[in-house]
Amino acid sequence: MQTVELIKKKREGQALSAAEIEWLVQGFTQGDIPDYQFSALLMAIVWRGMDAQETTDLTLAMARSGEQLAVRQMLSPAVDKHSTGGVGDKVTLAVAPLVAACGLPVAKMTGRGLGHTGGTVDKLESISNFRAALSQEEFWSILRAHQLVLSGQSNDLAPADGKMYALRDVTGTVESIPLIASSIMSKKLAIGASHLLLDVKVGSGAFMKTLPDAEKLAQTMVEIGNRAGVQTAAVISAMDQPLGQAIGNALELAEAISILQGKGPADVTALCHHEATTLLTMTGLAADRAAAEASVHQAISSGAALEKLAAVIEAQGGDPRQIRDSALLPAAPLRMPLASARAGYVAGIDAERVGLATMKLGAGRFKKGDPIDHATGLLLFAKVGDEVEAGQPLLEIHARSEEQAQAIQAELLSAYHWSDTPVSSGPLIYSEIV
Amino acid sequence: MQTVELIKKKREGQALSAAEIEWLVQGFTQGDIPDYQFSALLMAIVWRGMDAQETTDLTLAMARSGEQLAVRQMLSPAVDKHSTGGVGDKVTLAVAPLVAACGLPVAKMTGRGLGHTGGTVDKLESISNFRAALSQEEFWSILRAHQLVLSGQSNDLAPADGKMYALRDVTGTVESIPLIASSIMSKKLAIGASHLLLDVKVGSGAFMKTLPDAEKLAQTMVEIGNRAGVQTAAVISAMDQPLGQAIGNALELAEAISILQGKGPADVTALCHHEATTLLTMTGLAADRAAAEASVHQAISSGAALEKLAAVIEAQGGDPRQIRDSALLPAAPLRMPLASARAGYVAGIDAERVGLATMKLGAGRFKKGDPIDHATGLLLFAKVGDEVEAGQPLLEIHARSEEQAQAIQAELLSAYHWSDTPVSSGPLIYSEIV
Repeated sequence: MQTVELIKKKREGQALSAAEIEWLVQGFTQGDIPDYQFSALLMAIVWRGMDAQETTDLTLAMARSGEQLAVRQMLSPAVDKHSTGGVGDKVTLAVAPLVAACGLPVAKMTGRGLGHTGGTVDKLESISNFRAALSQEEFWSILRAHQLVLSGQSNDLAPADGKMYALRDVTGTVESIPLIASSIMSKKLAIGASHLLLDVKVGSGAFMKTLPDAEKLAQTMVEIGNRAGVQTAAVISAMDQPLGQAIGNALELAEAISILQGKGPADVTALCHHEATTLLTMTGLAADRAAAEASVHQAISSGAALEKLAAVIEAQGGDPRQIRDSALLPAAPLRMPLASARAGYVAGIDAERVGLATMKLGAGRFKKGDPIDHATGLLLFAKVGDEVEAGQPLLEIHARSEEQAQAIQAELLSAYHWSDTPVSSGPLIYSEIV
Repeated sequence: MQTVELIKKKREGQALSAAEIEWLVQGFTQGDIPDYQFSALLMAIVWRGMDAQETTDLTLAMARSGEQLAVRQMLSPAVDKHSTGGVGDKVTLAVAPLVAACGLPVAKMTGRGLGHTGGTVDKLESISNFRAALSQEEFWSILRAHQLVLSGQSNDLAPADGKMYALRDVTGTVESIPLIASSIMSKKLAIGASHLLLDVKVGSGAFMKTLPDAEKLAQTMVEIGNRAGVQTAAVISAMDQPLGQAIGNALELAEAISILQGKGPADVTALCHHEATTLLTMTGLAADRAAAEASVHQAISSGAALEKLAAVIEAQGGDPRQIRDSALLPAAPLRMPLASARAGYVAGIDAERVGLATMKLGAGRFKKGDPIDHATGLLLFAKVGDEVEAGQPLLEIHARSEEQAQAIQAELLSAYHWSDTPVSSGPLIYSEIV
């Protein structure tokens, strides 16, 4: 095969075969196909797109470029879940132990945050001595013992994706549904759970800004998963305002704990219960949504869900007391309330702007490798639809210093949009593909 | 400026500014912008195209990347001509001395052949000791003394083009009118004659296979030239069958000489006269086409045109006797006629196939740097529209050996298409943009 002929084929809008895609991906990953040819191919893909078969073949080729866990060959059902990322999104932290406590094994590999969205590993590392880097042996033994493992992502998983993403980032070829979908799904296929639930976020704080784009991405990923033998479903959920009350690593972990204790904020609790019941029904662990809901409520009210998280944290070296009592998690020295400058109804909270402001407290990374301050962040008291008096606190800033907190006040206030008449918040879940 | 932002701008179909294009071209030429970013940009240009202003800005930036002769600042009018290349295309060899003999200076830099189309420098190098590589001082002194110079192309001319073309060749980004037009025109703008005539070939033996593509390329190049201050015209001429009778270096030079002697084949003679009269009228050297024709006929019948070529060849180190008597040019040891297997009317001669067969005689290059056999080639006796008896010679192969000649016989016969009823040859010139 000749690389230039395959580039031309895609440039002319023709579909590449599985063998051609395999040849291109392995050639690029191994360094036989130079960056300058692969970036031209990537731009041709942005231009012409890829059909469902090509996108699946691309994803499988990327998944095959490195280590493959093939979880479902060892344990089935064993589920995986993935969120495309948002501000205040601690759903994985609550849903994973929740369904594991209901008897559904969860094999979760998770990444670090970059930019205004957080990463699950960073949130877990708020716990003293928690270890996300597990050997394959540890991964399997913890999963078997606890029906749950919360591992960091291995660098050996789908190395083609890392190399392709680095090239896309500098060549203007990020924005392509087949390339975004294959990037996410390659790692999921390399893990190879039996079932996968995707949470595709849409809105100002998400990567997908419009509902049609989010639906297209969700459909594409569901199709890849199902074609590749992983039964895949997707929830499309709102990311216009931050999810729940807490933003920041230890604060979000504490909120996840409160969800497992049955006392979390309404919006994020509803989303967690929805995703948990979807997982329990799609795997057949529960006969229907009502049975799944009952199982979820039982796991919470019995304390089994919280104990599941505590046990896994302990198995991964962390201090389980910090799960049983979130007051033991790292706390910022300063808590500064931010008062509303006006009375009215909250009409909107720009999630991306809030996320960027939180980064300035040290809670997020501007670039890869930046250190994280686990203690800092925000607690939101007023969300979309709430009526607020002038002077009433909109939120609380958890900061290292007064200076640091003051520096983001104006930015946070500008993230709030107002109405003089009552406002209803939009739907939390737009649609679901099962 | 950030390269990735400019790639995205073009990817979104927006026009790049002159400053942005200049920054990209100089950055790439100097090695500051890596190949992998530039190839993604090139694919985005293939996708989105470029408007007339962008294409002109790109061409000017490429022209500015190296040496600039600015001929029209030293001598005006001084014309340049360019052919996009075809099989048997010796028009430049005849037209340049013809118009120079009519008093119109011609500053010609010309390249080598690659693939099935020949290069003017290769044809000139059939002459013993002819030197195409001239210093700038020689270029100017020969042009001033003879109103004609036939120089090889300097490597310092538009180096951005060479670097861009090499990248396009391996990244599937050759086929783009703005990129093809800017590649050709960057070298023409770097020479900077006052007037330029383009011969855009169309047909099976040309790079442009369809008339709309050829017209689009011609219009684009004419617009670039005129916007950049070089008064530019274009002829769109047929390249379905080879032009004239001769194919091969010394054979084509001999045919050019015969045109200057007033005894060339009808088709190529007509095209040469047309181009010469266009040059004489567009520069104002002749008041109208009739006056230009008279001038051309006078230059031929007086022998002035042939003497002009002989004088310039001598000035560039070549043997002028080989111009005055083309029997002194290199000749192949073997001439083998190829008889027609059938009677009928010639309906077509696949120029590309004939060109490729001629390459196998050593008359052309499969890859850059291959040596050339100046003596070998073909003389066609039957052209489209001619009636032929079975057994009558269609052409004569000029080869190094019988083996070499026999090896291409079948290929040459398959290049001929036949009709049992009379056929008229198509137009030689489709249109002209002046």
